Amino acid sequence: MSTSHIFSAFDEELKFLMRRISEMGGLAEQMVADSVRALVNTDVALAQKVISDDAIMDATEREIGDKAVVMIARRQPVAADLREIIGALRIASDLERVGDLGKSNCKRVVAIQGTGIPRKLARGLEHLSELALQQLKEVLDVYTTRSAEKAKSIRDRDEEIDAMYTSLFRELLTYMMEDPRNITSCTHLLFCAKNIERIGDHATNIAETIYYMKTGAQPEGERPKEDLTASVGAIKE
Amino acid sequence: MSTSHIFSAFDEELKFLMRRISEMGGLAEQMVADSVRALVNTDVALAQKVISDDAIMDATEREIGDKAVVMIARRQPVAADLREIIGALRIASDLERVGDLGKSNCKRVVAIQGTGIPRKLARGLEHLSELALQQLKEVLDVYTTRSAEKAKSIRDRDEEIDAMYTSLFRELLTYMMEDPRNITSCTHLLFCAKNIERIGDHATNIAETIYYMKTGAQPEGERPKEDLTASVGAIKE
Repeated sequence: MSTSHIFSAFDEELKFLMRRISEMGGLAEQMVADSVRALVNTDVALAQKVISDDAIMDATEREIGDKAVVMIARRQPVAADLREIIGALRIASDLERVGDLGKSNCKRVVAIQGTGIPRKLARGLEHLSELALQQLKEVLDVYTTRSAEKAKSIRDRDEEIDAMYTSLFRELLTYMMEDPRNITSCTHLLFCAKNIERIGDHATNIAETIYYMKTGAQPEGERPKEDLTASVGAIKE
Repeated sequence: MSTSHIFSAFDEELKFLMRRISEMGGLAEQMVADSVRALVNTDVALAQKVISDDAIMDATEREIGDKAVVMIARRQPVAADLREIIGALRIASDLERVGDLGKSNCKRVVAIQGTGIPRKLARGLEHLSELALQQLKEVLDVYTTRSAEKAKSIRDRDEEIDAMYTSLFRELLTYMMEDPRNITSCTHLLFCAKNIERIGDHATNIAETIYYMKTGAQPEGERPKEDLTASVGAIKE
């Protein structure tokens, strides 16, 4: 077998990994969007669909993991080729967790069923998820184009999601204080909001991984990602 | 250089990875235990220490990642040796997240400062963290002994933590319903309880990774891990 044959087989295998990761990314986006629709419309059937989609995510992550180990053992890649495979493993792990967060939202649909979500809270959740999905979509585009600069810039801005999440957090607390009957459903919505905010963390992780794949280094400087609600103390009632 | 020399250098490098992972594991346990002490005693100085310890966890995970890539590129391991390195990467990632969860608890210490945690809730948090830490400790012991059977059995029992978490979840909701002034602090404690419960998830992940390192396969069957509170609906007031 000629060297070019070996390279070409390796390239085919890399393309396979990239294709699978794109598929996982697409499904993760769909699951998160569907989970918010299911919450807002208390659509139990849609929630059930997202919950069952999670098995596809798990199986694909496993497939990528198995393939990656076989590729490393057989092709013995070094430098950028090796980082490409290690990076695929990390990104698959982050996307699998995004799927888990969508599934977690959907499991709460049944708990809040019948209570009805005030329109303002529903809009807040939708807006938060739009921001998180936008960030996820951009980072998946960067995965295709491999721009280290773009990857760094995604990692460096996450403040909008954090601000939106903090505002929703405060609003949910206010609803709970106004009427104790809101406490159970608002608690579930708090966890859903947190789940969506965490999608931003995973997008940031993926951006860091892409930067690493491209440069072999980690982006410098403290990660800007913070949960600002941790400092929300007593709220005026 | 003789073959035995190469093997021995590789073994030394593997030992280095194992040592670093044990160190991460020890620090992760310490951070979680300290975070609960800081919460229960609203000890801001201790919380601050845990928050700064997180930088050590991040740096060690990065060091393990860099070392692993160099080892794969230089030694070109296959089969069990390769799984050992891939496994170290995964375990380091789970331990880094456990550290994050400890840090997240500590960031909430300031928010609940001055409100005082009822003794019963404090006991609940302590008990939950004891169970989670016990599971983490066991899985770290299994990492040293490499018993695939033991790894599978850890993965297969997590119900005690889930039951404890669900009970604490219900109790926190009850406190909120009794007095709206409890809502803000109890919300933060809810997130802390969830953080501790998630440590059980990471212990389960690590158990699965050890099983994979040892056998090359994933444990079969559905993961028993569930957040049972997702089905906690309206609670009697």
